[in-house]
Amino acid sequence: MSDDPVLVERDGAVATITMNRPDRRNALSLDHMRRLTEAFEEVGASDATGVILAGSGPVFSAGHDFADVAEADLDGARDLLNTCLRLMQTVQSVPQVVLARVHGLATAAGCQLVADCDLAVAGQNAGFAAPGGKGGWFCHTPMVAISRSIGRKRAMEMALTGDAIDAATAAEWGLVNQAVPDSELDTAARGLLERATRGAPRSTALGKQTLYAQFDRPERDAYTQAVEVMAASSQTPEAREGIAAFLEKRPPRWPE
Amino acid sequence: MSDDPVLVERDGAVATITMNRPDRRNALSLDHMRRLTEAFEEVGASDATGVILAGSGPVFSAGHDFADVAEADLDGARDLLNTCLRLMQTVQSVPQVVLARVHGLATAAGCQLVADCDLAVAGQNAGFAAPGGKGGWFCHTPMVAISRSIGRKRAMEMALTGDAIDAATAAEWGLVNQAVPDSELDTAARGLLERATRGAPRSTALGKQTLYAQFDRPERDAYTQAVEVMAASSQTPEAREGIAAFLEKRPPRWPE
Amino acid sequence: MSDDPVLVERDGAVATITMNRPDRRNALSLDHMRRLTEAFEEVGASDATGVILAGSGPVFSAGHDFADVAEADLDGARDLLNTCLRLMQTVQSVPQVVLARVHGLATAAGCQLVADCDLAVAGQNAGFAAPGGKGGWFCHTPMVAISRSIGRKRAMEMALTGDAIDAATAAEWGLVNQAVPDSELDTAARGLLERATRGAPRSTALGKQTLYAQFDRPERDAYTQAVEVMAASSQTPEAREGIAAFLEKRPPRWPE
Repeated sequence: MSDDPVLVERDGAVATITMNRPDRRNALSLDHMRRLTEAFEEVGASDATGVILAGSGPVFSAGHDFADVAEADLDGARDLLNTCLRLMQTVQSVPQVVLARVHGLATAAGCQLVADCDLAVAGQNAGFAAPGGKGGWFCHTPMVAISRSIGRKRAMEMALTGDAIDAATAAEWGLVNQAVPDSELDTAARGLLERATRGAPRSTALGKQTLYAQFDRPERDAYTQAVEVMAASSQTPEAREGIAAFLEKRPPRWPE
Repeated sequence: MSDDPVLVERDGAVATITMNRPDRRNALSLDHMRRLTEAFEEVGASDATGVILAGSGPVFSAGHDFADVAEADLDGARDLLNTCLRLMQTVQSVPQVVLARVHGLATAAGCQLVADCDLAVAGQNAGFAAPGGKGGWFCHTPMVAISRSIGRKRAMEMALTGDAIDAATAAEWGLVNQAVPDSELDTAARGLLERATRGAPRSTALGKQTLYAQFDRPERDAYTQAVEVMAASSQTPEAREGIAAFLEKRPPRWPE
Repeated sequence: MSDDPVLVERDGAVATITMNRPDRRNALSLDHMRRLTEAFEEVGASDATGVILAGSGPVFSAGHDFADVAEADLDGARDLLNTCLRLMQTVQSVPQVVLARVHGLATAAGCQLVADCDLAVAGQNAGFAAPGGKGGWFCHTPMVAISRSIGRKRAMEMALTGDAIDAATAAEWGLVNQAVPDSELDTAARGLLERATRGAPRSTALGKQTLYAQFDRPERDAYTQAVEVMAASSQTPEAREGIAAFLEKRPPRWPE
């Protein structure tokens, strides 16, 4: 395996981005986050329709690199966190469906990354934690993402205790879509991603981006926006082809 | 059975509105949505206290009628979607408690309708989907309603895959209140609606409307509004009678 | 046991505030809410790191005292509700982690109190209800808190039916963190609170307060705020000590 810190591979319509710093537990150093963001931008500009985000080594990602943080002054800390935010927003704004394949621990910003991916599948031995709560630097930004996937009391419990929940609990609480035996992780991740990328790529891209834009808003505001997006998108070649194919009972041929 | 496209029946305090275009899979054509909205307005002005929304034929509702959409230009599409929005808002603004009785597939705007009813009970063979995600026209507006009932990752999964979830999953995720054997669907729907309409009708109406107004807002904003509504409503004849009946240990007699 | 209406006890780092009006079912009269708020302010200014909120007698709390409400005019009702709101906001703004230990029924504002505590553990015989829905005065303000912990359809069901859900359902829906046999309630409550108070106290306080500030906001707004809080807090002695202890593989010593 290459020793590049971030690997980008392509298999059919699916790109896999692998965090490949196993000896650093895939910690999100400033440099690593920049490289990951670049990888997402590169894949984002490609004709891939789905992205699997994976990690090599024993854990998925241990979050920020404390060696970075130990030396950071206020501006340095803000730079680190804004770089992290840019990574999260890139994941949500690329046109592809992004699925986190979580095989081990995902902690702090690593858990945030799982929460901010569109979809997530966890192996049974994965774990999820926001450990800042049992230390001296609370996981404020990770909890923004985590608390939007699980209930409020559960968010408080993860945030305050800092303890890890297991994969089954993460699936029950809605932090991940599925928890599966480790031996089935790849199959499950690919299977879900395949089902999530059958639509016309431009329609799917607009769909996921519009979902993020409307989440957390009062329902009427969200509807006002969604009606306009849905009306406008009814005129796209993708919508026309999809409707025609449906009415003619034939498979659609998406425009390039 | 009548061949009116929308049936309105009354049994005691409960009105039942039935989508009755089984051969069109109760598709929400422009005309059908207008008739449904009129039916809700008519029942809304009556002294009914609860409404059951049902569908006849094999499915609950297949969503928008693609024949309509295929011909619509931008203004036509916007008109269709705003008519749909008016239907959803009418369901939430009528003073009655509205319960969806879902006996078969509820897809796209049909699933949105279930999500936007106050309560929902599903038969075990019901299914719920936002199928636009696997086509060319994403279910942007249905997902506004659906994503507000289930978690974010689950919303992404339904939206992107377009696959149906079954009734048990819908109950587990909170999209419906109960999943029951098909043979018990009517009893369960009536039973829940009966329990949900024991309060003073004007108090219940204000209650459901205030809930919709405060959902999705920051807790402090929601409290600011709810305190005023609750203080004002303490002075209503309904509140006075309810409190007096409680203190005097007698059943309340709600004012006309 | 003392007959003070509100008891404050201290055991190590944990303060216990007990609603002690068993004959009044710990009803939240104007006076009782003021005393509870004072107790939280007193404990809030102490060096305790966790607070258990408990009730004595057969129920946790029956909510507002209808004797108060029966006599209240509009200004009186508003005063009652704003006093209640101040109690809820005090619970969320004190620097300690606040855990509700629920041994019996928690109804109306009593259920709101559980929903607005940071964490909650319920004995198997506890129950949770917003009974205004089956009366004449809807539980508008309790539902602000309750609807933020459970899903929308479930909130509608609790609000409209007014029926109690049991402890197991409350845990499944996320209204409480755990439901345990009554005999294990104290151990479970203390165990969870202990795990939730291992962090540096000032870091934990900032953490819980920032969580409340970001909940319910669009993710980007929440991130904007959380990045600033997290950057600033990286410079605190607590963060420095926590990171140093982690890198030096030794237990942290939190600054006084």
